[in-house]
Amino acid sequence: MNIIEKTVKSKNLYNGKIVKLDIETVLLPNGNITEREIIRHPGAVAILPIDSNENIYFIKQFRKAINDILIEIPAGKLEIGEEPYKCALRELQEEIGYTSNKLTLINTIYTSPGFADEIIYIYKAEELVKSQLKKDEDEFIDICIFHKSQVFDMIKNGEIKDAKTIVALLTAFKL
Amino acid sequence: MNIIEKTVKSKNLYNGKIVKLDIETVLLPNGNITEREIIRHPGAVAILPIDSNENIYFIKQFRKAINDILIEIPAGKLEIGEEPYKCALRELQEEIGYTSNKLTLINTIYTSPGFADEIIYIYKAEELVKSQLKKDEDEFIDICIFHKSQVFDMIKNGEIKDAKTIVALLTAFKL
Repeated sequence: MNIIEKTVKSKNLYNGKIVKLDIETVLLPNGNITEREIIRHPGAVAILPIDSNENIYFIKQFRKAINDILIEIPAGKLEIGEEPYKCALRELQEEIGYTSNKLTLINTIYTSPGFADEIIYIYKAEELVKSQLKKDEDEFIDICIFHKSQVFDMIKNGEIKDAKTIVALLTAFKL
Repeated sequence: MNIIEKTVKSKNLYNGKIVKLDIETVLLPNGNITEREIIRHPGAVAILPIDSNENIYFIKQFRKAINDILIEIPAGKLEIGEEPYKCALRELQEEIGYTSNKLTLINTIYTSPGFADEIIYIYKAEELVKSQLKKDEDEFIDICIFHKSQVFDMIKNGEIKDAKTIVALLTAFKL
């Protein structure tokens, strides 16, 4: 079955620091016309930092969208033209103050394909080397460390609720 | 460390069929003021339908946001005031034409907490009973069935790239 939707018209309604909002008028396979609300996002990386004792570095961060503090792995948006692995090394340093000599792409996901184009490149970072913490002055995060043996229960009991963090942990250790 | 951001002002910029866009002016822990772009979404359910032979029902759907066809588990937005498990049964019928006598909440995730409040309740649906397909005339989806033994390779090789689908499969079978 042909299930492609062809764009007839595209209108940008908002152009922000992080997201853009486009309204696309599309031609459906049955000939009908409808509109799609699409959030454009630059894409991101997420990094699962694991030391030689199988300790994993997380960050606790207040997320205004949900008005709550989440436990997540380090992550950040791609800058224009930035290679994902370079972004991963940058965010690792900015958020937990480490660099990695063994960075491996372990998964690539679409987080909300129903309304957003955000793609996240997920890396595993091993052979960690202490570096300088280069914090953004307006970014407020707490670093927290959990052993590999703890994290699966934290997913089960809802302490870890962030999709990219769950995908990273289960891809790295269970797939 | 106090990492909460207090809302000083909130402005709605767009109010669509699926998403809303709010700009919240927030007071940071260091006393600075900044703006957060927040996509409001009604929340959703996703359902992993598994029959007695360990076949899993997926849908192939064109996603305009990424201009590509994705393999996903059945899913859909919550209607106003709708209980997640009722929404799960409704979407199961609308998208694959089955109902379930054993519906279990297996995980709850935030898909993009950096910019959106979308929450997805993920159910496992067993004891499937053939029902009537109640398709929306403007929804174009193909049903496809893969055995449990196939799906982990499909995640590894990138055939399955949708975050909620990966979380559902790994939670149900590997956690």
